[in-house]
This record gives sequence, structure tokens and C-alpha cells, in this order.
Amino acid sequence: MSGLKLRIGLPKGSLEDATIELFEKAGYIVARSSRAYRPAIDDDELEVRLVRPQEIARYVEQGFLDCGVTGKDWILENNADVRVICELKYNKSTSLPVKWVLAVHESSPIYKPSDLQGKWIATEAVNMVKQYLQKLGIEAHVEFSWGATEVKVPELVDAIVDITETGSSLRANHLRIVDVILESFPQFICSHKIWEEPEKRKKLSSMALLLQSALNARNKVGLKMNVPKEKLTAILKILPSLRNPTVSPLADGQWVAVETILDESQVRDLAPQLKEMGAEGIIEYSLNKIIY
Amino acid sequence: MSGLKLRIGLPKGSLEDATIELFEKAGYIVARSSRAYRPAIDDDELEVRLVRPQEIARYVEQGFLDCGVTGKDWILENNADVRVICELKYNKSTSLPVKWVLAVHESSPIYKPSDLQGKWIATEAVNMVKQYLQKLGIEAHVEFSWGATEVKVPELVDAIVDITETGSSLRANHLRIVDVILESFPQFICSHKIWEEPEKRKKLSSMALLLQSALNARNKVGLKMNVPKEKLTAILKILPSLRNPTVSPLADGQWVAVETILDESQVRDLAPQLKEMGAEGIIEYSLNKIIY
Amino acid sequence: MSGLKLRIGLPKGSLEDATIELFEKAGYIVARSSRAYRPAIDDDELEVRLVRPQEIARYVEQGFLDCGVTGKDWILENNADVRVICELKYNKSTSLPVKWVLAVHESSPIYKPSDLQGKWIATEAVNMVKQYLQKLGIEAHVEFSWGATEVKVPELVDAIVDITETGSSLRANHLRIVDVILESFPQFICSHKIWEEPEKRKKLSSMALLLQSALNARNKVGLKMNVPKEKLTAILKILPSLRNPTVSPLADGQWVAVETILDESQVRDLAPQLKEMGAEGIIEYSLNKIIY
Amino acid sequence: MSGLKLRIGLPKGSLEDATIELFEKAGYIVARSSRAYRPAIDDDELEVRLVRPQEIARYVEQGFLDCGVTGKDWILENNADVRVICELKYNKSTSLPVKWVLAVHESSPIYKPSDLQGKWIATEAVNMVKQYLQKLGIEAHVEFSWGATEVKVPELVDAIVDITETGSSLRANHLRIVDVILESFPQFICSHKIWEEPEKRKKLSSMALLLQSALNARNKVGLKMNVPKEKLTAILKILPSLRNPTVSPLADGQWVAVETILDESQVRDLAPQLKEMGAEGIIEYSLNKIIY
Amino acid sequence: MSGLKLRIGLPKGSLEDATIELFEKAGYIVARSSRAYRPAIDDDELEVRLVRPQEIARYVEQGFLDCGVTGKDWILENNADVRVICELKYNKSTSLPVKWVLAVHESSPIYKPSDLQGKWIATEAVNMVKQYLQKLGIEAHVEFSWGATEVKVPELVDAIVDITETGSSLRANHLRIVDVILESFPQFICSHKIWEEPEKRKKLSSMALLLQSALNARNKVGLKMNVPKEKLTAILKILPSLRNPTVSPLADGQWVAVETILDESQVRDLAPQLKEMGAEGIIEYSLNKIIY
Amino acid sequence: MSGLKLRIGLPKGSLEDATIELFEKAGYIVARSSRAYRPAIDDDELEVRLVRPQEIARYVEQGFLDCGVTGKDWILENNADVRVICELKYNKSTSLPVKWVLAVHESSPIYKPSDLQGKWIATEAVNMVKQYLQKLGIEAHVEFSWGATEVKVPELVDAIVDITETGSSLRANHLRIVDVILESFPQFICSHKIWEEPEKRKKLSSMALLLQSALNARNKVGLKMNVPKEKLTAILKILPSLRNPTVSPLADGQWVAVETILDESQVRDLAPQLKEMGAEGIIEYSLNKIIY
Repeated sequence: MSGLKLRIGLPKGSLEDATIELFEKAGYIVARSSRAYRPAIDDDELEVRLVRPQEIARYVEQGFLDCGVTGKDWILENNADVRVICELKYNKSTSLPVKWVLAVHESSPIYKPSDLQGKWIATEAVNMVKQYLQKLGIEAHVEFSWGATEVKVPELVDAIVDITETGSSLRANHLRIVDVILESFPQFICSHKIWEEPEKRKKLSSMALLLQSALNARNKVGLKMNVPKEKLTAILKILPSLRNPTVSPLADGQWVAVETILDESQVRDLAPQLKEMGAEGIIEYSLNKIIY
Repeated sequence: MSGLKLRIGLPKGSLEDATIELFEKAGYIVARSSRAYRPAIDDDELEVRLVRPQEIARYVEQGFLDCGVTGKDWILENNADVRVICELKYNKSTSLPVKWVLAVHESSPIYKPSDLQGKWIATEAVNMVKQYLQKLGIEAHVEFSWGATEVKVPELVDAIVDITETGSSLRANHLRIVDVILESFPQFICSHKIWEEPEKRKKLSSMALLLQSALNARNKVGLKMNVPKEKLTAILKILPSLRNPTVSPLADGQWVAVETILDESQVRDLAPQLKEMGAEGIIEYSLNKIIY
Repeated sequence: MSGLKLRIGLPKGSLEDATIELFEKAGYIVARSSRAYRPAIDDDELEVRLVRPQEIARYVEQGFLDCGVTGKDWILENNADVRVICELKYNKSTSLPVKWVLAVHESSPIYKPSDLQGKWIATEAVNMVKQYLQKLGIEAHVEFSWGATEVKVPELVDAIVDITETGSSLRANHLRIVDVILESFPQFICSHKIWEEPEKRKKLSSMALLLQSALNARNKVGLKMNVPKEKLTAILKILPSLRNPTVSPLADGQWVAVETILDESQVRDLAPQLKEMGAEGIIEYSLNKIIY
Repeated sequence: MSGLKLRIGLPKGSLEDATIELFEKAGYIVARSSRAYRPAIDDDELEVRLVRPQEIARYVEQGFLDCGVTGKDWILENNADVRVICELKYNKSTSLPVKWVLAVHESSPIYKPSDLQGKWIATEAVNMVKQYLQKLGIEAHVEFSWGATEVKVPELVDAIVDITETGSSLRANHLRIVDVILESFPQFICSHKIWEEPEKRKKLSSMALLLQSALNARNKVGLKMNVPKEKLTAILKILPSLRNPTVSPLADGQWVAVETILDESQVRDLAPQLKEMGAEGIIEYSLNKIIY
Repeated sequence: MSGLKLRIGLPKGSLEDATIELFEKAGYIVARSSRAYRPAIDDDELEVRLVRPQEIARYVEQGFLDCGVTGKDWILENNADVRVICELKYNKSTSLPVKWVLAVHESSPIYKPSDLQGKWIATEAVNMVKQYLQKLGIEAHVEFSWGATEVKVPELVDAIVDITETGSSLRANHLRIVDVILESFPQFICSHKIWEEPEKRKKLSSMALLLQSALNARNKVGLKMNVPKEKLTAILKILPSLRNPTVSPLADGQWVAVETILDESQVRDLAPQLKEMGAEGIIEYSLNKIIY
Repeated sequence: MSGLKLRIGLPKGSLEDATIELFEKAGYIVARSSRAYRPAIDDDELEVRLVRPQEIARYVEQGFLDCGVTGKDWILENNADVRVICELKYNKSTSLPVKWVLAVHESSPIYKPSDLQGKWIATEAVNMVKQYLQKLGIEAHVEFSWGATEVKVPELVDAIVDITETGSSLRANHLRIVDVILESFPQFICSHKIWEEPEKRKKLSSMALLLQSALNARNKVGLKMNVPKEKLTAILKILPSLRNPTVSPLADGQWVAVETILDESQVRDLAPQLKEMGAEGIIEYSLNKIIY
């Protein structure tokens, strides 16, 4: 056991389950008890804190946390000066980024950002919105919203800036999108100071490798099949070039085994073709990690 | 991206979870939001609609849906003229078909279908029951039941025709089965018109192949082991002949690797024997799809 | 189908889910209905009964059950004369044994077992505690506790003996551990009589092998990679020696495929090294069973 | 205990809780077990059946039930020839009738019933809709809907006829109301035959009296106050004339006590006035029944 | 605030909600937090402990608790020498006592207690059953059951003695009742020593009065009506004699007000009669307590 | 129906249920649908909006809402210039005010407010805390907390200012209270402008009267009894003087009826005495409102 110890902030709330699941796939078991701020982790060099994503970048910058996972959006909102180790392309339930949209009521006369001049906007990300308006040279009143932002137009404010993952909540509230302000994925971050310590930088790099290996394996599968030797060239040609397929001899000298990694969605198109081209015993199995 | 677009109806309700899980194993991610009629799917050529299974065949026939998954029972009940692409042998929680049974109360004097002459029968599948009676030359009153059918005998009707998966609900209500009217599995269907368009027929055939590959892998596992060359013949003899095992050489020339696919339940009997016969490093792993 | 039939008692209650999940991984599907004393199992030679773990050893000894899974603790408490086929190292949510601890309130003057002389102790395992005290030559009043044992000190009794898995309930009630009386894992047991019948002994031995294979695979993963021949020796040196890696030739004669089984937690350290040493196409996958 | 026995059908489903609560206020305790078709009732002359409201009138007409509570809508849909003992003005959560509305999608070109000529309509009340169309001389296709009716327009049908209590589901689905087809309250009904038996008619009349007494007390409260004799006339003048207030002497001869029954909502206006006019010790209390 | 302090044990578990509700109606607010052994109570002279009903009598006898509420059954099972202040006729959900029944499987050859000679009986109340058998001169093996007692016959034991409130669990398990061993209501108890202290005895007596007043009001209602003087005698004759009705003069000298207390279920019969006999303005209201 | 219309903001969230229940007792039925921002209310002169309590005062001040119910704390935090019509002494589950406490970790060296000089404080009420510090002449960093404030000390901040109702959350997080900054009850507020309009002021005053009448009736009950004339003086002496008891003659000239209002908790002491002193037929009943 090394003396190394890193305090890592993970996002409490809507990203919590997806983040802990990602860590689990990367090989770290995070065990939450019912209302845990400090869940256990099976790595003696790490200490986990569950913290609101809005605050993680701030605390990493201030040095209260060594590293963390939080959205690009909240790094910007906090205007936090931190080191981004790598981007992690996941989300609550999809692999798409969250979008911060400027939205108004269906019936609103606002159709483009410049129509906001002099208007009232409610949002949970006041700074981000102010910067957005400043860039465009628009002056408007931006007020902090405590939640349920989407019901406030048109009665209480003229426009809102809010997160949307699928757009369904917008539709349910009769909102119309005027602009997309930001698309944001989670980021694995640390402080500049921590990054300068070689042992810690090595640890953080390993973690980044494993987290990305787990993300690499998302929606990827392994495909194995037996192929008659004379069809091998043709079959290799249609397999995606993501990674060279592994070809190994079989006891029956007329056949070889081919094994490859590909997008699960590619199997939809490939499987019927492979069968037609003479591959046999095609099976598909799941993967935990892919390390490029 | 092709211009192809197929509107597919998936069954809302008791089969919903099992169907969406099957599609996922076949390579299609269906993302439902809370009360979604139109869940998202990660295939640009498909548009999903969650529709009551009772109505899918009707809408496919009428052309409002292009294809769908629904029970053989509801195709019959609707007397729908549709193309069955393939049968899909799954169910809510087992791999057994649902049974439509003609049932009466334990104490009923009805013991065979012909005892129904002149009696009252409640069912959710009125047409199906009428056809059944007609074939047998029995005249009885068949009335539509709005649900909780099984509690209606003997007080409100003389007999019922209802679905049973495990029979436990029948027992709980003290019912006795008189006849099994139909055993029904889900069917992958499309309209005759759609089937005549080559590009769409190809798409539907691929989907059928993938759905069946996923069902093939149910309760199947991969088994790998290292075998001394001199024991290979004996060991191959006891492996099930479902599919030829793959034998591949190892670096250590005295051993070969054997890999095969079999029923998970067969492992219970084989594993102890294989160990006794000299196989080493036996491991079992899961499969997503098997394409025969 | 053989005529063999074994009645097996599985523990109802806190171990129930983990036990049924273990049987599932071992290849036996146990299907519980809502309040089932007799869940179904997909093996015609077995009949399952869900029974309180406190009573299983008693009924196995009396011959009302043929075999069962219950804790070492309750075998001792019942003073049951049964055959232990094998120990099964699992638990409700961890792989650690349950501990029976002698505990007092933080503020208690009791610091060692001998301080218990003449005191009152509440426990659900009266016999076990009496035997413990007897060995130490201590006389104390042991009374049966109907539950919520941990809230009884210091007001109603002087000390308790209770189960703890993580210690969190002890801390929440301000208890201090004085001694650990027993560490207990589930045991797969049968009666001596059943064990003497060769056919049944063979069945029970197979079941033990499969249950342990499933436990072996817990937290283990398979790792596959392609390795340039000249790096093979160096790479084999850093792979854990748990089981000899399988090395197989590839079609490209300069490379070999290496496949091995290891702890998932080892991957965290190995994966970055392997990549650095020249391994390519490293993938990790899950295992259902490992049969040593 | 008389020999009298009446089998009463109460509506299972959305009206179930409100109906059982009404019976409880009327003095009948109905004790449901978890999935009871036959809940217990504390009146030996009654036997309760929980039946879908759609079917109650039919079974009363056919004599399988003696009496029941069901909506006017389902009496009409069934075209049932039954005796209406009294109307009961309650609903799932309000005192308003349910409305059956003809609705189309916001964007539909249908604006009046006659626009439906030749169109497709989905509804759970096919007969009711057909009668409605017939009266208007409109020909349209009416098809039975198995549920989730409100999502079917505009894609699957042109219009729907569905129940609405508050209209919120209509709005959520972007529907526009074209016409209100029926407003419906629950009815206490019996068969004509039962009504002709004097003893049963007396029992049913008493039940009707008690059910209505309980409904009378809904939203009514008792108000008591002490009033100086010289202010009595003025105060009596502003009290609602629903029922003559009871005036009783007090020991202190200068004051009288006044007690009256009124709408709880009237207290909102009266209480401030009464206080201003000199009433003292004003208290409000709840009522279970009011028997006019 | 007196210096008086009584530690009272209330039953944790199935009687818990009903007991706390009864105390609330008697005027004592017991505020449980999530996992409270020591809930708060709004009476400085009381300290509540939530303890298993099986153990309350034991701890009252030993002096660790001063008083408590527990079943007559568990007082007997513990053979506890305590003072019964009063019986409290309530239960989990009815006003009926719990019954301890001796039950066997439907198919059992045991039809009367004496058939138990030499048999095995499982129960949670071992002492109570042994005393019962001893009185009858029957010898049988009585073993402690850790729960789910009702599923043990006929496979694991010959008979059981278990609690039944409604009998539904017996029916569900196909059990037949052979004898009723005990009918048991909760008892308000204290230790003999406490009862000898006058101030504490007075407190306990007041509590008993209030608890019983609250039980008295269960299912009772107040009925008020205005009656023409000439009909008073006739009307008083049909009012139940539970308590003398209060007759008071009205300002209008021709009428009197009559107010009485009666069973809610009596209103069903009386209300129609009273109306017929000329009573007006009949109202019914609820009661919290009746102090006889 | 007057043309009057007042838009009232009620607090969404932790106070929501208690507030709506209070309005119901005051005579206003607020009907929430599942995710309603605009619940219905049965008063045509009111329109309800469910708004975060943090925002209500702000919107009332700005004129977007006419009146509302929100905590004194959030009025201060918003520094809102609004008219307080009356204070409403209720809370989520008790009748105690919420407390805003300055708290630190048990182990902190901070023991009095002045120890905060130069420290970091997290709170949801930044302005309130800044004003508090300013008054005391303390300079410290106050930062906005997005929630879960109580877990932030000692690691992330030095102190917190947070709400506590019972203190249990503080204890669970090992916090020590340094100071109580504010005790806060809900306030019924309106804008100054609205208050100047006579008709609206009258409406708001009536509402205040009714809301307070409902709060007056909390924990109060009515007590009625029949008293022999010769005992009247003695009995009146022990009845609490909250309000003069109403004494009325009975038909039986030797007795009078006495009716009074008192704290439910007083009944515990009075009932036994009244019985002893000769009162008969004592009953207790609930009250909805008391208008002083």
C-alpha cells in the first residue's frame, strides 16, 4: 500500500448512478450507504466524496478536492481554473451531451437571441447565461431560478435557460427552443498543483485510461466465428477496421477462427452478410473494457 | 443513411419489458421516457410506437403501422390479414407460450366443451372464442369481459376463456381447466404490401435473424477449456452436438483449446465429468447472440 | 429422468436473494412466486423449501429436509449433527462472513468478557452464547431477544450478542464491541444418512462443485490480448500465477494470443503496464463459472 | 337478523375508493382485502361484489346482481333496462360529473361534429358514440379502443371520445374538444323485479336515504355561536336559509345559543360578518350525515 | 411539572400503529422518528420505549419498565407476575381479539387435541402451548418456530399453534382449525411495586380512563335532532338506552332539541324511522372520547 | 361573483402539504394534479400558484403575485419589501418555528460567532448570513450552498448556516450549534399596492381571519357534559378560562348542559376530575375552526 491518497469528488444527483456504474466498469467498486456523502471505494489510494456537480470544480480549484468528475457546464459556470484530464462521453441515460437551451413559450414573440434585449431570463446557470449574452452584445435581466424553471414562462419571466436531455419536458411545457447555448459532457478534472506531482499524475492517468476503456466497451461487443480458409480474405474485407481481427488456426486445417471487436449496432448489418458468406458458429459476447 | 423508414408497433403492457429487452439483445436500444407512446430507437430506419398488443395487428393490416410484434392470439382475434415474418418464442417471464384456456369453477357441472351448449362465457377474445365454438358446433353466449375475468365464475358467467402463463391465478380463484383453446407466442409481422418491397423485406428479414439470434442465446453459454491431446477424442464425444466445438492448437503442443456452446443447464452435468476426464481451466461465459 | 429426489432447504429472509442468485449462477433457476414456501426449480431431482435459516439444520438432522444451505452460526445454535459438504463464502451483500459480536454501550464499565459475571445478556442465539460463557467459566443471565437487540443496552440489559455485517448499526446505536464470538459463512449441508447413499452423494458433490465454481467467478474476469512473440516472456512474468495463461498461435506468425483469468481489481494495475509493454487489443470480459 | 339478502355491485377501479368511502360515511364498513372481488360488509343483508362499472348495469338487468352503483354513462352504453333509485352526485375526487368529450388533435381540420362524416373515431364507449352520431345523422367509423385513447390522434384515428374529469390529460396530449357528448354521475340502481318486492324496496330506500345523507354532509359544517338576545334577529337574517337555525336559551338570560348547518364555503364569508355583528365563541365542526 | 416519571413500553411491530393511534385519541401524541426505540411523547411524566410485545411483560416484571401495553398472550407466555390495570379492546385493524389456534393441514388425520399425542408442534409461544397440553394431559413435542409457521404443516411438523386475526392466512395455506387455545386483547399493565405508590397509581388510573374513553368512542357517533314536543315521548322510546338522551328547550317553545350517543351502525336503522316520526334537522357527528 | 381576482403563491416543497391542509381547514379546497404549478381552488376570487418558498416574496414584491404564504426567513433573504398581513404559526409537522442555526463540526475550535473571523461559511441564505455577520462586525466568506449543506463541515467549509426543525439531522452529522440566527414562521403577505385597495384588503383580512381560526382549532377540542345544578359552580371553577363555557338548561330541571372549548391536552387532567365531581355523559369532539 502506497502512501498516496487522492480525494475525488463524484457528482451527486442526476449523474450519480451513471458515474458510479462507470467507475464499477472501470474496476472501482463504490459502495453507497443510504445518504452517504462519503461512500466507500475499494482502492486505498482514493477517497470518494459525493458532491453536487455544480460545486465540484470550485472545490477542486480551491484544493478541497484533489480531482473529480463534473460537467463542462458547471466548470464554465464556476469559471473554474482546473486541469481537464480527459472528457468522459457519457450521460444520465444516453451517450449524448446535455444541452443548455434558451427557450420561450410557444406563443412568445421572441424568435432570436437579439429579441431578448431588456427581457427577463430565469436560469440555474446565471454566469453562463450572462457570458452568452455579453458575447452577443445583448442586455437582459438574468435571474437565478430555484427549480421548476420550465413552468415559469410566460407568466413570471420572458425566457429560460435550462438543461434538456431529450426535449420531452420542454414539449410538455409548451416551450420553444430559441438557441442552444452549450453542449456539455462530464470531465475528469484535477487541480493544476496535483497534476505537477509525478506520482499523482501517474495515478490520475491510469484512472483516465481505465475509465475510457470502460467507455470504449460501451456498445461494443466481441464477435467470433469459424471461417473456411478460402473465404477468409473476403470476410476480413467486410469486417470494420476498428481493430485488426485476430485470426487463429483451428485443429481442422481447412478452417480458421476469426475474432473481432465492433459496435453492437454494426452486428445488425454484418451478421446477415457473414452468414451468407459462409461463416459458421457466429457468436456475440459482451465486453467490460477495451484498452487501445 | 438510407431513406428507408419502418414504423414498428411494440406491445405496451405485460409483454413490454420482455420485448424491449429482446430488442436490446438483438442490438436495438429502445429508450422509453415515462409515459412514452413514441420511444426512441437507435436505428434511423425504424420508428417505434408502443401500442396495446390487442391493436397492433389491426393497425399493421390497415397500414398505419408497417410492422410489429404481437401475439398469435391477437392476430387471430382481430382476424388480421398480415404477413408473419417469424415466430418469437419468448414470454413475459418464461419461454413458454401463453395459453388461452376455457375454465370453469371447480364445482361446475361443465366437464367438456360440449357441456357449454346454451351457456354464458366471458372473455377478452370474443372472436377467437366464437370461432372455437363454431368449429365444435356449439352454441353459447360469448360476452366481452373488461378484465378480472377469472373472478366471474361461477356467479356471473358459466365459463371463461382467459390467458394463463403459470396457472397460479387459476388455482387462486378455484378454477378448473376444461380445454386449451390456443397456445400463443409473439409473432413478428408486417403488412403484405410492405413485404412486397424488396428493400423493406430485406430489412425485416435481417431484423428477424437478429431477434432470433438473441433468442437462440437465451439459456446458452460458452464453455472453454484446455485439454491434453490424448484426451481430446473422449472429451469431444461427451460434448453435446448442438454445434461442432472449435478446437485450436496451443503454444504448448501437448494441449489444445476446446470451446463450445451449450445449454446452461447442461453444464450442471458436464462440468463434473469434464474435470474428471482431465480438462483444465474450464470457464463458462455468457452469450448475447448465436447466429446459426 | 432419474428417480432421485432431494428436498433442499434454502434460507428465507436476509440471505434469500443472495442464495437464489448464487444458485442461478451455478445453473439452477429458482422461481419464487409471491409468498412461496415451495418455489419451483428447473431440476427434477430437487425440491426447494424456503425455511428460516435458524431451523434448516434442525430439519435436516431430523430428516424432514435432505440437505440445505444455512449459516455455521445456526448449525451451532441448534447443536445439529449434520454433514457439512462445503462452505460457501458469500453473504448478503459482501464476501465477508457475518460476525457475532459481544457488544455493550459505549459508556458501559464492561471491557472484557470476564466483566460479564452476573450480568444480563440478550441475544437471538441463546445456546451459542451459553456455550461461549461456559468455555470462559463466566456465569451470566442469557435471555432470548425477539429482535431489535441492539437498542436494549444499556437500559434493558447489560450486554448483547448480535450479528454485524458492516458495523454501521452498532455505531448508530453507540455500541462498543467487547469480543467477536463467531465468524460464520453459509454451509451446504446434508444429513449423515443421505451422504451414505452413493447416488445422492454424487448429486450433492456435483452441486457443491457448481456452487463453488460460481463463487470462484465472483470478481474474476477474463483478459485477452495479442502479444508480439519477442515480448511474450516478459509479459507472462507479470501476469498473476492464479492459473496458467493460455497461449495460442495466430495466423500472423509474429504474434501470439494470450488469455488469462484474474481478479478484476488486478486489471487496474496490469492494464496500463501491459499496454506499455507492447500488448495490443487488450479486452476484458466477464465469467459465469471457473472450475478448478 | 332478517332473511333478506341483496347482492350489490360496487364499481372496481377509478371510482372504487370514493364509493367505498361514501358507503362508510353512510354507515356501511366495506373491508377489502388485497385483490378482493367480494369484500366484506358489516350488514348481514348485503353482499358486495366489486365489478367493473362498465358491467354492473348489465348484470343488474340480467339479475346476476340485485342492485349496484355505476355511472349513467355505462348504463347508456349497455342500453340497460334498470330502475334508477337515486342519482349520487360524487366522483373520483370532485363533486363534478365526468364528461365524455369528442376530441381531436389541436391541428385537426375537424371543428364541429358534422366534420366527422366518413372519419374514424376511437372510444371505449362504442354504442354511446354510435347513438350520438345517429341522432345527428352523421356516418363515421367508430372503433373500440383498448386504452390510452388520447394518444391515438392524429396518427391512428381522426377523433376520439373519452372521459375527462379535469381536462388536464387532454391538454397534455394537445387535444381540442369538439363537443361534450354526455355528463354522467353515478346512479344507485336495481332491477325492476327487485323493486317490486316491498321488503327489498324498503331496504333499498333506506340505503338511498343514508347514501344521500352522507352526500348532503359533504362540504357542510355545523356552526355554533352565542348571541346577545338583542342581536338575534339581525344575525338570523344573514344565516343561510338551508335549514332553520336552532335557537336555545342559555343560563345567562341575556344570551342565546344559535346552531346551524351551512356550506363550508359559506363560512368564509359569514364568519367575519358574524364576529362583527357581536356573535361570540363561534366554532365550526364537521358532520357525517344530514338527513333532510 | 411534577417530578413523576413513568417508563412505558409500547408494542413494536404489528400493533404499533394501532396503539399509537389509540394513545393519540386518548390525548397523547407519540412522535416516532425513523428507527426510534425512544419516541417522544407530549407528557413530561411519561417516557416511551418501543419494545417487542413478547418482551414487555418480562421487562415490566423485572422493573426495567414501569408499565406497558402488551397482549394477554405474551403475559401468559412469559408467565409474568404483573398488575393488569385494564384490558384494551382493540387490535391491528378490527375490534376483535387475536386468536391463538391449534391448526393442522386440511388432509391431516388430527381432529381433536388428544390426537396430538406424540406429535410435533411448532409455535412462537412454546410455554403457552406446553401449559395447554399439560392441562389436557397430552404429551407432544413443542418446538420454537422462528416465523412463517403456517407453511410448516404437514411437511415439517404435524400441527402448529399460531395467531389468526381474520383466518385468511389459514385458508390460503389449507389449514384446518382443531382448537382455539386463547383469545387475547392488549392489556395495560404495570409492576406490583409501581401500583403501590399512590401518585403513580393515580396517574396510571387516569391514563386507563382516557384510553378507555377513546375506545368507547370507536364506532360511536353523536345524533342531534329537533323534535316537536308532542312526539318527544314516542321518539325517546326508540332511541337506544346506552345513555340518557339530553333534551333541551328551544326558543320556539313547541320544539325541543334531542341529542344522544349511539353506535354508528344503529343510525342505519334509526334514521329512516326518526324522519318518519317527525324529527327534523337530524345530523350525525363524530366523537373523540366518551367518558362514562 | 365579484370581479375580484387575487393571485396567491403557496410554497412548493417541504411546507406544501401542511399549507394546503391549513387552507383546507380554513375552508379553501386546493386540488393538486400530479405536477401542478396551477392547482385549482374552490374560490373564484383566488388563483393559486405553487412556487418555491424562496421566490414567493420576490414575486409578490414585483407584482407577479398578489399575495402569498412564505417563511419570514425567505422574506428577509430576499430583502423583500412586502406587507405582512399576519403570521401563521405552523410548520411542516410541528407548531414550532424553523430555526436557522450557525453550526460547526463537533470537533471545531469555533465556539462563538466571533471565532468566525476570516472563515468560510456555506448556506442557502447568503444575504441573511451576511447581514447577521455585519451586525456583529465579523468578516467571513459566505458562499451559496446547493444543498446537503450539513455534510460540508469540517471538510469543505468551516461552518454552515442551515435550517433545523428537530435537530436530528444536526446530530446525525455530528454538528454543534454555535448560535441561532433566526426563528421563522410562515407569513401571509401581500404587496403594499394591493393592500391599499379596500376591496382586496377586505378579502385578505377575511382570509387571515379564517387561516387563524383554523390554527386556533389545532389541538383544541369541544367538551360537553351534563351537570347537576348544585355542582355547577364547583365545576365551572375548574374549567379553563380560555372562553366562557356555555351553560344551557335541560328539560330535566335538575340538570344543566355545559359545553366548553379547551386544549386537547387539558382533557387528560380534567376528565378524571369532572367525572369525580359528578359530571355525566362527558363527550369530546373535534373542531375545525375557532373564531375569537
